[in-house]
Amino acid sequence: MAYLRNVWYAAAWSYEIVAGELFPRTIIEQPLVFFRNERGEVSALQDRCPHRFAALSLGRLEGGSLACRYHGLQFDAAGKCVGNPHGPVVESLRVPTYPAVERHALVWVWLGDPALADPADIPDMSFHDAVPDTAFNKGYLFINASHHLLVDNILDLCHADFLHPESLGNGWITRNRPKVEESGDTLFVEWLGFNEPPTPLFEPELPPGSMCDTWLSVLWRPSGAMVLRSGITLPGEPQAAGKDSLNGHIMTPETARSTHYFHSSTRDFRADDAEYNQQMYQGLRWAFEHQDRPMIEAQQQRIGSANLLDLGPALMPIDIAPVRARRIYERLLASELAGNSGARQSA
Amino acid sequence: MAYLRNVWYAAAWSYEIVAGELFPRTIIEQPLVFFRNERGEVSALQDRCPHRFAALSLGRLEGGSLACRYHGLQFDAAGKCVGNPHGPVVESLRVPTYPAVERHALVWVWLGDPALADPADIPDMSFHDAVPDTAFNKGYLFINASHHLLVDNILDLCHADFLHPESLGNGWITRNRPKVEESGDTLFVEWLGFNEPPTPLFEPELPPGSMCDTWLSVLWRPSGAMVLRSGITLPGEPQAAGKDSLNGHIMTPETARSTHYFHSSTRDFRADDAEYNQQMYQGLRWAFEHQDRPMIEAQQQRIGSANLLDLGPALMPIDIAPVRARRIYERLLASELAGNSGARQSA
Amino acid sequence: MAYLRNVWYAAAWSYEIVAGELFPRTIIEQPLVFFRNERGEVSALQDRCPHRFAALSLGRLEGGSLACRYHGLQFDAAGKCVGNPHGPVVESLRVPTYPAVERHALVWVWLGDPALADPADIPDMSFHDAVPDTAFNKGYLFINASHHLLVDNILDLCHADFLHPESLGNGWITRNRPKVEESGDTLFVEWLGFNEPPTPLFEPELPPGSMCDTWLSVLWRPSGAMVLRSGITLPGEPQAAGKDSLNGHIMTPETARSTHYFHSSTRDFRADDAEYNQQMYQGLRWAFEHQDRPMIEAQQQRIGSANLLDLGPALMPIDIAPVRARRIYERLLASELAGNSGARQSA
Repeated sequence: MAYLRNVWYAAAWSYEIVAGELFPRTIIEQPLVFFRNERGEVSALQDRCPHRFAALSLGRLEGGSLACRYHGLQFDAAGKCVGNPHGPVVESLRVPTYPAVERHALVWVWLGDPALADPADIPDMSFHDAVPDTAFNKGYLFINASHHLLVDNILDLCHADFLHPESLGNGWITRNRPKVEESGDTLFVEWLGFNEPPTPLFEPELPPGSMCDTWLSVLWRPSGAMVLRSGITLPGEPQAAGKDSLNGHIMTPETARSTHYFHSSTRDFRADDAEYNQQMYQGLRWAFEHQDRPMIEAQQQRIGSANLLDLGPALMPIDIAPVRARRIYERLLASELAGNSGARQSA
Repeated sequence: MAYLRNVWYAAAWSYEIVAGELFPRTIIEQPLVFFRNERGEVSALQDRCPHRFAALSLGRLEGGSLACRYHGLQFDAAGKCVGNPHGPVVESLRVPTYPAVERHALVWVWLGDPALADPADIPDMSFHDAVPDTAFNKGYLFINASHHLLVDNILDLCHADFLHPESLGNGWITRNRPKVEESGDTLFVEWLGFNEPPTPLFEPELPPGSMCDTWLSVLWRPSGAMVLRSGITLPGEPQAAGKDSLNGHIMTPETARSTHYFHSSTRDFRADDAEYNQQMYQGLRWAFEHQDRPMIEAQQQRIGSANLLDLGPALMPIDIAPVRARRIYERLLASELAGNSGARQSA
Repeated sequence: MAYLRNVWYAAAWSYEIVAGELFPRTIIEQPLVFFRNERGEVSALQDRCPHRFAALSLGRLEGGSLACRYHGLQFDAAGKCVGNPHGPVVESLRVPTYPAVERHALVWVWLGDPALADPADIPDMSFHDAVPDTAFNKGYLFINASHHLLVDNILDLCHADFLHPESLGNGWITRNRPKVEESGDTLFVEWLGFNEPPTPLFEPELPPGSMCDTWLSVLWRPSGAMVLRSGITLPGEPQAAGKDSLNGHIMTPETARSTHYFHSSTRDFRADDAEYNQQMYQGLRWAFEHQDRPMIEAQQQRIGSANLLDLGPALMPIDIAPVRARRIYERLLASELAGNSGARQSA
């Protein structure tokens, strides 16, 4: 299976990689092990000892180096062998490492050409740091489906009107066609509604019975980092006078048919209400686990190992953004496979 | 894997398809969804939205139409799109449907050429309706083995002497060679015993220590609908003076190595004894689940993906009916694959 | 997958094959059934009825013969059909049998050319019988990894210094290079340490704070029968004055990626201490289950269906014995596949 390599992949929430512990995660079929040095900086190594392919993540952290628990070979954070109890330290005893950067509560890893790994290209999730902890909730889900299907799901938010009618949708998204803007390798989709009833999630934030102006948008960056913005204001009021929420939906392929799903939610209202924050988390989590996940996993079963677009789906205008994201992905992938791993066009 | 298509497949017991609910079942590798209209009539649709291949069985029934829970497309029982919240209703938004008929407590589906779907060809299970509920018990089992092995099992009932000696067999079936009659595409196997001891199941129906005349037969219709008749009478008495039981053993392929097994039992004695009916159900169920199933699943493991007949089994006269049924199946399949889907020869 | 056939495979511990019961086990992908005759002698038959491939291990033992529970065919211990309720006993109703010999608490089976099956070639595990029961403990583990990886593990015991530091290793194995002797088709590896600290396992056997001379060796015979010897004595004393332990590590392939692991431990000290014997068992068992098994299964996952040596591992001197054993295995296998199944060179 071919995957984009010259992209930053979200590998883990920061909290998942605990000081002094080894954290394994497989990304685009590569087993990786993550750990922190004494300054807390994260390293990413191939989770495979070069000697006889033991799992380094079963090893020990000793000082800043990782000791394989099978035969005691020690590697520093750069993958260089720094201890061999059995003979000389030779160049072949090297573990591939990958650029890893911690930013905005996530750890990102670059599995492509290291010369192109520019942290400036990490998808901007700075909204994670712009609110207090009581206005920020987040989680991780493992999904048995292609990352493409999970990207489709977020780029086509009218699904909320049908799949999440008790929380995230009420028909207004479907009633209002989005604009779709492609810019470089990124995609921006925006729905705007005027004088619409609020969705169940936002209803308590308005006076009883009030209508609202409302907005919803997704900024997608390859391969699957998305920022979703949604909000409401009283009809006719500016957005700045309303309630706004920024959310992360980040899809990192494990394999062709399994995905690491990192979701987050922040908001500019009830920002110091820890209990509301927990309710919000529970509500979103329930929707993702019990509504999106079974739907998308069943979709995957029906698609099998094929590419959805090769099976003749009956596409509609609501599929414009999902299809464009797949086209951008295919274009970038073809370019990488052709050896053109040059500079990415930014938005 | 190739399967017969121009046959009626038992898809579900009537009771499995509940008014107002969607019922999914995969038959010959086709995911299907079943539901009832307001008059209770059953429809069968492909369980795959034409839009982006979501599972329709996760959707909602609204009036007589099925709404996909992913994006709200609505389909009527004929698979025609009758509602599209996102744009015009166009012809490509159509779900394949399959003729479905409810008859004699089962729902049957036709996955072949619809022009050939004649309900008159549905295997006759009218005995289900000829007795009160207290003389009719039935169940469903999922078996991890080929439907061919499950048909073999019923067409060769001498296995009951060895696998079910505490209930269904006592040696008389083995002692009495069956006659095997092929008629058109059907097969009839009959064992007759005279002055034999009754099997444990029938023993309580006779005076203590009495011998019996006894009969056992199976009528097979492709691909795996079988009616099993068994009974006893006092030696020398006519069958009509005895106790008789009609049973269904219907094998519907899910995949090459998994089968939906529908079993039923009716009788003309103790017909209003609900407790006895429940005991009979429990006893048969125990035999199918704990004796037939493990034996046949282990047999499947040893056969793997091969065809048993290609592996050089040491066949015996008891295999005549199973082998003939496989030959008829192969002949019908070859004919279908060659495009000759013409009228089937009835018995 | 190709396996050596002209070798004796350990199939089961003697205690696993209980009089009057049928014992199934798959070896090199062949399903086998084992049972004892009235004199307690073990037979090994293919676990597949020649009739329609039912599992004979689901059958009944009747006198010295095995009756298939599906149709009642009876086979004697030589695989000859001795009863057919359905017709004549013909030659095609024969179950392949395999030479099986019980020796030194294990049952061994030969799946190759029966003309070459010489019990004198059974790997010598006579140490099992040389001690009282209170100095002998043993067990069986099922491992989801290639038998090659499990042989590697025992031929390279310096792993104990890293994987088992609280019990079996303390660094002395790594500090002392082994000698490796190839003799015919066998391999002998020996580590000797002088004036070394005792490992945790042996420490209680010496005066507090005492150093020791210590030894450790493995004799490997194809495909995976290994005798591990380890012991200590006070510095400068002869081995005969010390404590010595003989251990079996026997790896029998089930499939290319699953292995039956038979482990045993005997000793010449505390030989009548049943409680110590149980402690020893628990300690070794814990190490094999919770340290070796996860490490080797993770190694297997990283290797997949490839041959480790084809993937460019960074081999070191500690790998000499594992690599040589693989080379001997490959040589013997090539010879067998070429039809040269002649006399094996003994050590």
